[in-house]
Amino acid sequence: MAFRTIGLFARQGDARIMGTVRALREHLLARDIELLPGDAPFFDLFDDGIGDVAESVHDRLDLGVAIGGDGTMLHLARHFSWTRVPLIGVNLGRLGFLTDLSAERMIEEVDEILAGNYYSETRILIAAEIHRAGARIAEGVALNDAVIAKGETGRMIEYSWWVDDEPVGTTRGDGVIVTTPTGSTAYALSAGGPILHPVLPALSVVPICPHTVSHRPIVLDDSSTIRFQVNDLAGAGGHLFLDGLDMALLEDDDTILIRKSEGQSMLVRAASHNHFEALRSKLGWAG
Amino acid sequence: MAFRTIGLFARQGDARIMGTVRALREHLLARDIELLPGDAPFFDLFDDGIGDVAESVHDRLDLGVAIGGDGTMLHLARHFSWTRVPLIGVNLGRLGFLTDLSAERMIEEVDEILAGNYYSETRILIAAEIHRAGARIAEGVALNDAVIAKGETGRMIEYSWWVDDEPVGTTRGDGVIVTTPTGSTAYALSAGGPILHPVLPALSVVPICPHTVSHRPIVLDDSSTIRFQVNDLAGAGGHLFLDGLDMALLEDDDTILIRKSEGQSMLVRAASHNHFEALRSKLGWAG
Amino acid sequence: MAFRTIGLFARQGDARIMGTVRALREHLLARDIELLPGDAPFFDLFDDGIGDVAESVHDRLDLGVAIGGDGTMLHLARHFSWTRVPLIGVNLGRLGFLTDLSAERMIEEVDEILAGNYYSETRILIAAEIHRAGARIAEGVALNDAVIAKGETGRMIEYSWWVDDEPVGTTRGDGVIVTTPTGSTAYALSAGGPILHPVLPALSVVPICPHTVSHRPIVLDDSSTIRFQVNDLAGAGGHLFLDGLDMALLEDDDTILIRKSEGQSMLVRAASHNHFEALRSKLGWAG
Amino acid sequence: MAFRTIGLFARQGDARIMGTVRALREHLLARDIELLPGDAPFFDLFDDGIGDVAESVHDRLDLGVAIGGDGTMLHLARHFSWTRVPLIGVNLGRLGFLTDLSAERMIEEVDEILAGNYYSETRILIAAEIHRAGARIAEGVALNDAVIAKGETGRMIEYSWWVDDEPVGTTRGDGVIVTTPTGSTAYALSAGGPILHPVLPALSVVPICPHTVSHRPIVLDDSSTIRFQVNDLAGAGGHLFLDGLDMALLEDDDTILIRKSEGQSMLVRAASHNHFEALRSKLGWAG
Repeated sequence: MAFRTIGLFARQGDARIMGTVRALREHLLARDIELLPGDAPFFDLFDDGIGDVAESVHDRLDLGVAIGGDGTMLHLARHFSWTRVPLIGVNLGRLGFLTDLSAERMIEEVDEILAGNYYSETRILIAAEIHRAGARIAEGVALNDAVIAKGETGRMIEYSWWVDDEPVGTTRGDGVIVTTPTGSTAYALSAGGPILHPVLPALSVVPICPHTVSHRPIVLDDSSTIRFQVNDLAGAGGHLFLDGLDMALLEDDDTILIRKSEGQSMLVRAASHNHFEALRSKLGWAG
Repeated sequence: MAFRTIGLFARQGDARIMGTVRALREHLLARDIELLPGDAPFFDLFDDGIGDVAESVHDRLDLGVAIGGDGTMLHLARHFSWTRVPLIGVNLGRLGFLTDLSAERMIEEVDEILAGNYYSETRILIAAEIHRAGARIAEGVALNDAVIAKGETGRMIEYSWWVDDEPVGTTRGDGVIVTTPTGSTAYALSAGGPILHPVLPALSVVPICPHTVSHRPIVLDDSSTIRFQVNDLAGAGGHLFLDGLDMALLEDDDTILIRKSEGQSMLVRAASHNHFEALRSKLGWAG
Repeated sequence: MAFRTIGLFARQGDARIMGTVRALREHLLARDIELLPGDAPFFDLFDDGIGDVAESVHDRLDLGVAIGGDGTMLHLARHFSWTRVPLIGVNLGRLGFLTDLSAERMIEEVDEILAGNYYSETRILIAAEIHRAGARIAEGVALNDAVIAKGETGRMIEYSWWVDDEPVGTTRGDGVIVTTPTGSTAYALSAGGPILHPVLPALSVVPICPHTVSHRPIVLDDSSTIRFQVNDLAGAGGHLFLDGLDMALLEDDDTILIRKSEGQSMLVRAASHNHFEALRSKLGWAG
Repeated sequence: MAFRTIGLFARQGDARIMGTVRALREHLLARDIELLPGDAPFFDLFDDGIGDVAESVHDRLDLGVAIGGDGTMLHLARHFSWTRVPLIGVNLGRLGFLTDLSAERMIEEVDEILAGNYYSETRILIAAEIHRAGARIAEGVALNDAVIAKGETGRMIEYSWWVDDEPVGTTRGDGVIVTTPTGSTAYALSAGGPILHPVLPALSVVPICPHTVSHRPIVLDDSSTIRFQVNDLAGAGGHLFLDGLDMALLEDDDTILIRKSEGQSMLVRAASHNHFEALRSKLGWAG
């Protein structure tokens, strides 16, 4: 696939981002790539209207580029999850799992990719819905994870959960994470979850500081529908975070439905990218 | 030590508590024990004025009894930590580590204790202070634990910490727990901390979902002064919880000092109480 | 599928097994089921000739029944993994994940299954090979797990490993477990591995007491080929255990290849069997 | 304390050790330090007669120096645990927790210590005894840890244990570690144990891959006597390792007694040594 029309996406207002975008634009224009947007340096991924932008440009794009960090890439992926636009990221911050291209070597790395030295990986996303008193009050998607978290309380919350309508149990603790393979190296890892290979068709359910210490992460087939009911939020409300973004304030007895999204992300990786090498480097595994 | 004057402490408004208190009062009065309060069923541990009450009665009490659960007992212990009053708890809820006496067998068990079939355990407490811009803005004590926790955010917070002014490191995650041996079977256990024997002169520092997965619980001598600085609360504030109670809203750059309190608690345990048996029972260890 | 011809499998020499087998035989004969063997109470699964037996009877069997515990069932499954014979187990010992039928309620439960109140689950097995100096010196299959374990030494061993020829890293520790979903609730759970849903197409690699504490379990697609090289066995040899059975004494520089077996097991489960209920019960999760 | 007579200890036969010893001897002799041995480069710590050597020279030594790695230092510490001889180590291998001096900067660092820029740390040791059929059949000491480990079997072993004659419980698994604070960063850390501050008066009991997943490390006061009985070694014997050295082959029903040794080690640390900095460096904690 030739990348003739490329969209640039970033976050407003950071001098380092502006410099990187400028250098990238100049290089791509010199190579006769058509860039979107044409009248601005980039589309602002953190703008409220980014959904409309995505809809208006997706059929013209051969490639979307996020300039920033893993958080920027998560935004890009969610907004294009219903399309087939290939995506890639340039990393300006801490080493990322999602953003392959380094700011320092960006020009050479982009040229490699334009020359066809890349491969594509399809990543699943999570779709989450909150139901209250019989009505769906909120919904959204996540490339990394959906997190049910307690509010501002020093006490535990309690939830019950089901997989494909089979009851799994009732747990008390700080909350629970449902992660895709992509998110398994993010928050879920900190909470004690396993690392899932990126293309494994699975979702992992990781309790956060569970009161019953025999509770353990469970890895499910990604065709599973996972349902949570928050029984008791300790009087402090609760939150559903999708990729770290606050989706809604939860109330006692809310139901949260989580399943694989119908959309997905197609990540473009440099041919030299090696998942296990990234793990070794980021997790400090000796060579 | 003979228990001639006994104080009763509970929480207002629960029929089950009222029934238990009534039965206990009748039994103790029949045994010629002097009861405080004389004009009410019990002192309300959750009343704002309980500190003044504790000060006015502590030198008359031979024993303080908390009727409720571990939470009630934690309140009693904090309010009498500067005294030498022996304390015991009657458990009306889930099996507790701190409340020895069961509601069902309370009368016999109290008689055993009045007959001298008990032993005393001294437990350390934690003293915590929050400093902001050079001034101490809040302080308190805890029998279980002090918890620095993130606010309502799906992102990590970052803190640095020192032991006796030696730098330990900088950690990102959901927060951190400093626990006494007493609290080591509470929240700290859920977060992956070790079980400390009740009389070990130690404090344990347990990171909550640390981003760097090689971070591990560290057990320190209880003469240590532990200092935390919250570098970045992810724009959502943060909290210091003492025994689960919200002590203050934290701001970026706040310093939290934690050391052993000068006060302590003297817990009265039934002679039959066995710490390891309680562990086996509560943690589901096969016999 | 009607179960007209049933094979019985057990281990020699235990009075409790003999009683259970006798009761089961009588009941099945009364129901006009053909039983194999015809001239003995059961085939001895722990006999060296069991492989030949399996080959000679498999095309006549509609169902194989293991009487014993999970260990007996593991034997049955391995010996019939190259066939399509449905298998079920009667549990005489500790509650098992693989043996559904209880000794106490066996007759009713068998009748339920004969009446068609069951479902089938296909479980993957692991195939393992040991290569030394270019030659394959041993091979075998496992329903639960393949374990590379250190020999009788108080020191660590070191191994390197690859997934589909991509290097993952070099680890020191007590060894490593590769588990199927079936085995994820066995030894791998004790070593800190996640629980995999029984039908997840995955293999999990769980290091045993890794020296580098940032090492974590990794869950791979079951199409992966996992290769280990044992670099240094600390002068004490090492072992490859398949379902807990010692397959070979390892030497330095041996290569162990692990992939999904071409065979598989078809487990017959009582219609009432619920995987999560079994987890709750065995792991002590409160309801 | 002035270090006028210094003993050198190493392991026979390694060219790198020999070079380091030679350089150290020359430097110390040039500084008018008396060296032991006088007629050989060093005492061989791994020689069977090292116990007699230690006895014959200990009252003449102001300082003992181990040249090698943490393993060499462990040997030195055990052989001098009944003396008050200060000890220090030169590290030729992987970064160690016990061996402060680096081979590269050894001369300057030794001069610093001779100039008095050091501090001393007293470390506790473990004393272990094996009892069989009423008789004590073996005993020994360890600076790091005592490990009860299964033999060459793919099955679990079972043991029961007591603290000061109070029963704690019965556990199945790969074995159990009792560690001093010194050993808490060694094998016990790999098995999931907490880090104990070096001078904490504590012993930590860490189960190895326990079958009951709610089992957790327990930290005890170092005045505790810990007693294990190995109920079932799965037909494969078992081992008691002290600092990784095989002390005895265990049999079913053996009793192992573990308590703090009457001896102890006095470690000399460079004034610049910082325990937490060593942790950060070795465990890969980001700064």
